[in-house]
Amino acid sequence: MSLAPALDEMRALLGDRLSTAPAVLAHHAQSESHITARAPDAVAFPLTTGEVAALARIAAAHAVPLIGWGAGTSLEGHALAVTGGVTVDFRDMAAVIEVRSEDRIARVQPGITRMALNAWLRDTGLFFPVDPGADASLGGMAATRASGTAAVGYGTMRDNVLGLEIVLAGGEVIRTGSQAPKSSAGYDLTALFVGSEGTLGLITELTLHLHGQPEAVSAATCGFPSMAAAVDCVIATMQMGIPMARIEFLDSATVAACNAHSNMALPETPLLAVEFHGSPAGVQEQAERFGEIAAGFGADGFRWAKAEEDCRALWKMRHAAYPAILASRPGAKAVITDVCVPISALAQAVEETAADIAGSPIPGPILGHVGDGNFHAILLIDPANPDDLTAAKALAHRMAERALRLGGTITGEHGIGLGKLGLMAAEHGAAWGVMDRIKATLDPMNLMNPGKMVP
Amino acid sequence: MSLAPALDEMRALLGDRLSTAPAVLAHHAQSESHITARAPDAVAFPLTTGEVAALARIAAAHAVPLIGWGAGTSLEGHALAVTGGVTVDFRDMAAVIEVRSEDRIARVQPGITRMALNAWLRDTGLFFPVDPGADASLGGMAATRASGTAAVGYGTMRDNVLGLEIVLAGGEVIRTGSQAPKSSAGYDLTALFVGSEGTLGLITELTLHLHGQPEAVSAATCGFPSMAAAVDCVIATMQMGIPMARIEFLDSATVAACNAHSNMALPETPLLAVEFHGSPAGVQEQAERFGEIAAGFGADGFRWAKAEEDCRALWKMRHAAYPAILASRPGAKAVITDVCVPISALAQAVEETAADIAGSPIPGPILGHVGDGNFHAILLIDPANPDDLTAAKALAHRMAERALRLGGTITGEHGIGLGKLGLMAAEHGAAWGVMDRIKATLDPMNLMNPGKMVP
Repeated sequence: MSLAPALDEMRALLGDRLSTAPAVLAHHAQSESHITARAPDAVAFPLTTGEVAALARIAAAHAVPLIGWGAGTSLEGHALAVTGGVTVDFRDMAAVIEVRSEDRIARVQPGITRMALNAWLRDTGLFFPVDPGADASLGGMAATRASGTAAVGYGTMRDNVLGLEIVLAGGEVIRTGSQAPKSSAGYDLTALFVGSEGTLGLITELTLHLHGQPEAVSAATCGFPSMAAAVDCVIATMQMGIPMARIEFLDSATVAACNAHSNMALPETPLLAVEFHGSPAGVQEQAERFGEIAAGFGADGFRWAKAEEDCRALWKMRHAAYPAILASRPGAKAVITDVCVPISALAQAVEETAADIAGSPIPGPILGHVGDGNFHAILLIDPANPDDLTAAKALAHRMAERALRLGGTITGEHGIGLGKLGLMAAEHGAAWGVMDRIKATLDPMNLMNPGKMVP
Repeated sequence: MSLAPALDEMRALLGDRLSTAPAVLAHHAQSESHITARAPDAVAFPLTTGEVAALARIAAAHAVPLIGWGAGTSLEGHALAVTGGVTVDFRDMAAVIEVRSEDRIARVQPGITRMALNAWLRDTGLFFPVDPGADASLGGMAATRASGTAAVGYGTMRDNVLGLEIVLAGGEVIRTGSQAPKSSAGYDLTALFVGSEGTLGLITELTLHLHGQPEAVSAATCGFPSMAAAVDCVIATMQMGIPMARIEFLDSATVAACNAHSNMALPETPLLAVEFHGSPAGVQEQAERFGEIAAGFGADGFRWAKAEEDCRALWKMRHAAYPAILASRPGAKAVITDVCVPISALAQAVEETAADIAGSPIPGPILGHVGDGNFHAILLIDPANPDDLTAAKALAHRMAERALRLGGTITGEHGIGLGKLGLMAAEHGAAWGVMDRIKATLDPMNLMNPGKMVP
């Protein structure tokens, strides 16, 4: 790496939009996780695809790594500069380029966050449904194949990105996908880059699939006598083909934390929170049928939210579950786990995990996107006690192994980053070698987010 | 290529399941299109993944091409042995390995056809929705990223394949995906192989996403005063967020052909055929709302099919549109086109195409999966008149160029094969080079379906 001449050329390109200020570097060495790494050597704030391509050309000429940065909400240290280099922060590439209502398409720059996009869309009758909780950037969400609470109804980033513009290692710019709803023309490069975590190229534009704002919304919470009853209720509801926009599980510890933090008075038992989108008659019918199914599994204490503001309060509470859980152990930090299993294995996976945590020295409330088989334990550690981190890492590792044993995956939505790299071989076997060959051919100098994804 | 020793080794492996009989070779040189190529040098009928892997090892040792073969229903000559070699016919690998009802998953071998799979599933309450019309094999459907009439409601093969087992060039076997509903673990190799047309490896097993058989079904046809009115009705219905399982467009020539062939008495105007799946109350509401929207665009002559057998007759008629159109010009052969455009450009694309065909010497009824922006002109040529084929190819080429100009794709569902290879650069630009690099790294000897997909 010939850093100094690279930074000179990048400064000539960007002026003061290339920063080596210690505070800026320190900000880009942070992560919403316990994972740490060194700071980058510089942070670039490009304005255009042309500037990103020029950065990639300079980086290639001097063997300098480039690491993409969106909103900094990664939970697995994706955007940390393991071997130094230049972080490319898309803060200033955050525009909505075009919205085509008839086609339900938006073309956006990567730095826009999902909340900013939805605020922009409010009067169009459309919205972008993928909702990971955090106000992540769309570029980052695509790079990690994010999903969240609404994936059961609307799919993940895999399903809602129609096309991309990518700057490859070396600076070549390609476009993937088209604006048609489907295509059989060639390898699905859009899908290859979605979830590639910046290791194959930098996303400089996204074509997104928008959805109509639902005419009617109905949401509810209800308590269950056991985790297994709640999860079995989810399975039965899915099997009845009742379309759900969201269905979330919170264990009793999570509910208690939410009650304390969001000033709610929910029953402190295993809880489901569910939301239906559709026509007024449709959501009414769905809600009634869900109520009947849930009652059959012993559900109690139904609270229905039909007004938009009541629904919003419910999901605000759900999205605040993470700070609520953190606040439940003052001074604690969290190790956030993320596994996803076949629905049939969900009850077993959740119960074994809960038992494992109960036998450990640390608390770990469990919540999840149960319609997808995806759940998280928020393992609370005392940062002053190294034994806690050791215990949390061991629990997280056993959760991942359990998920694989049950036919699932080590990460449903948070991605690999640095936190899960050691588990890739266990999940993919020889297929990990294929990923390595693809990485090597598209980034032969290993400059795009090095140290991630492949061996 | 050292053919003779390769065939000796393959015969030692497979016995009489390696055939060089002229009739077998000739059958595998055929295509459901005007595209022709030479016959393969042999046809292998493996029973297991292990045998396919052994074939790939032998092929690599002697530089012999391998070409996958499913049901032989490709419309673009995908499975033709351009440079000779061995066709791998999956006829004897057609089992359902496992159905997991709670997870709505089926694991199948590639040779099973969609109708055989759905017959197998009939009593499970589940079905596999992707319906390209032809009774294609699931392996072939995955390889071409097929879709068809139900894609507007259930998605394409891209959306309904959860994982694959693949034999790579050289014989290595990998598994992609998991049995969980989603994952963020690494590059999406499943999506990369779906649509790769056998050029990156041979699919030896698929994990499919099944859907619940709908509780209630309602279907209808109605006529429109113009193509534009029919297409605008589709756009409006989509924008109202009314969930449709299918919505198909037939122009008046197609309707006339279907009337003659299937003994129907539909109004010989531009026609929409639509189907709703859901609860009894849900489909009733959807059907009523569609009826209101359609009436606003001048729709007339509604025919509702609520009984299952009436729906079945309707879609049987639709699926028989191709032979019906062929029969409308006795002795004709067809050049079948396949483009897909953004919904907002659909009326323009269909009308310009119709005008172009009207100014040509050949007939070309138009029909399509309009909810996806996907339509076909069935260009009818007299095989004895070479001018007809020239005219058809020119029309097809202009259709593809028009689709690209309107932001669409050269193929919505039929794939590239030999027929569309010359248009890949126009659609993908520099991204085609990325496909070429991926092909070169995964198949460095160019043995997997050579002559397809890349330059």
